[in-house]
Amino acid sequence: MRQVKGSLTVETDGQGLYEVTARVQAWVAAQNIRHGLLTLYLHHTSASLLIQENADPDVLHDLHAFFRRVVPEDVRFYRHNQEGPDDMPAHIRAALTTTHLAIPVEDGRPDLGRWQGIYVFEHRSSPKERRLSLHLLGD
Amino acid sequence: MRQVKGSLTVETDGQGLYEVTARVQAWVAAQNIRHGLLTLYLHHTSASLLIQENADPDVLHDLHAFFRRVVPEDVRFYRHNQEGPDDMPAHIRAALTTTHLAIPVEDGRPDLGRWQGIYVFEHRSSPKERRLSLHLLGD
Amino acid sequence: MRQVKGSLTVETDGQGLYEVTARVQAWVAAQNIRHGLLTLYLHHTSASLLIQENADPDVLHDLHAFFRRVVPEDVRFYRHNQEGPDDMPAHIRAALTTTHLAIPVEDGRPDLGRWQGIYVFEHRSSPKERRLSLHLLGD
Repeated sequence: MRQVKGSLTVETDGQGLYEVTARVQAWVAAQNIRHGLLTLYLHHTSASLLIQENADPDVLHDLHAFFRRVVPEDVRFYRHNQEGPDDMPAHIRAALTTTHLAIPVEDGRPDLGRWQGIYVFEHRSSPKERRLSLHLLGD
Repeated sequence: MRQVKGSLTVETDGQGLYEVTARVQAWVAAQNIRHGLLTLYLHHTSASLLIQENADPDVLHDLHAFFRRVVPEDVRFYRHNQEGPDDMPAHIRAALTTTHLAIPVEDGRPDLGRWQGIYVFEHRSSPKERRLSLHLLGD
Repeated sequence: MRQVKGSLTVETDGQGLYEVTARVQAWVAAQNIRHGLLTLYLHHTSASLLIQENADPDVLHDLHAFFRRVVPEDVRFYRHNQEGPDDMPAHIRAALTTTHLAIPVEDGRPDLGRWQGIYVFEHRSSPKERRLSLHLLGD
């Protein structure tokens, strides 16, 4: 068994879900590991990772709308507003989702379900560069 | 160190939490790995995984009731309603919980806390077959 | 590649976020593994793990306030109230966050983002001893 580490930079341009499935698949395919475990890690606290349906874009719209409703951008709710009304909601939305994912790898591909895609969920309104680490171990 | 991969099919019959602790323990016990790390992965976006208290069934009831209240099944909230009023809420409830779990393995058993059980959280109302992958690595 | 297992006891004194970054870093530094993957696992269902901003304490305050608002401590909402009004909300808040974390390790350190800290999120009001397992694999 061996391990390999990589990273991707994901450029985001406002709140929403950015699919990275194809880029992650391409990276895994290049590592010459057939079977194992892939771990993704996002080095930020105002963006997060999510596996979600990649068939109907309305799912992504509704998901984002839910988080806007449950975690309102209203500065009266928060003490931490230095970077604007989306600052603290970004941290809360990240806490409600996750900073890392693990996915089994089969035949050199992440073994995603038929409708599963891998997303970076951007919670800030301004453009950002997000750093995503990939760790793969296996044979 | 070596790795082994397996899978379980979990049949669900409507929304709620389905405990899989015993089946997961039995699978781990059969792998002849004493110490290591177990990763569970669910190949769906309308069901999820959760570690929760397995002592009082009221906990599972209250947990489910909370998710029904916070993520209402009201089609006016959503664009994505093709498969009925539980369709989009299922995706959101899955996003609020998780698609994978990792648990240390000690002496051939997942090292769960005293009150911890492993659950598949079904978010759809109709019967489903859910695919759960298990990845174990260790010595 | 090899693996090593350890544990930390985290004493909490009421609800809130307890940073464990320095203790986790010290444990990792002592294992003589330079590159790999660290997994943290919390053996409880009324406390959870979270990666959050460690620069401004107001973030932790606002985060906790959000969870108090969304998951109210009102016994009329719940059947499971044996241990008081914070009992069932603790389980729900744990379900909304997570029981485990995985973080890549680089040069003998968890490769956290610049603003990321590792927290135990205590959801119970009374003092508790929380057991946190650490699993590290790598070279």
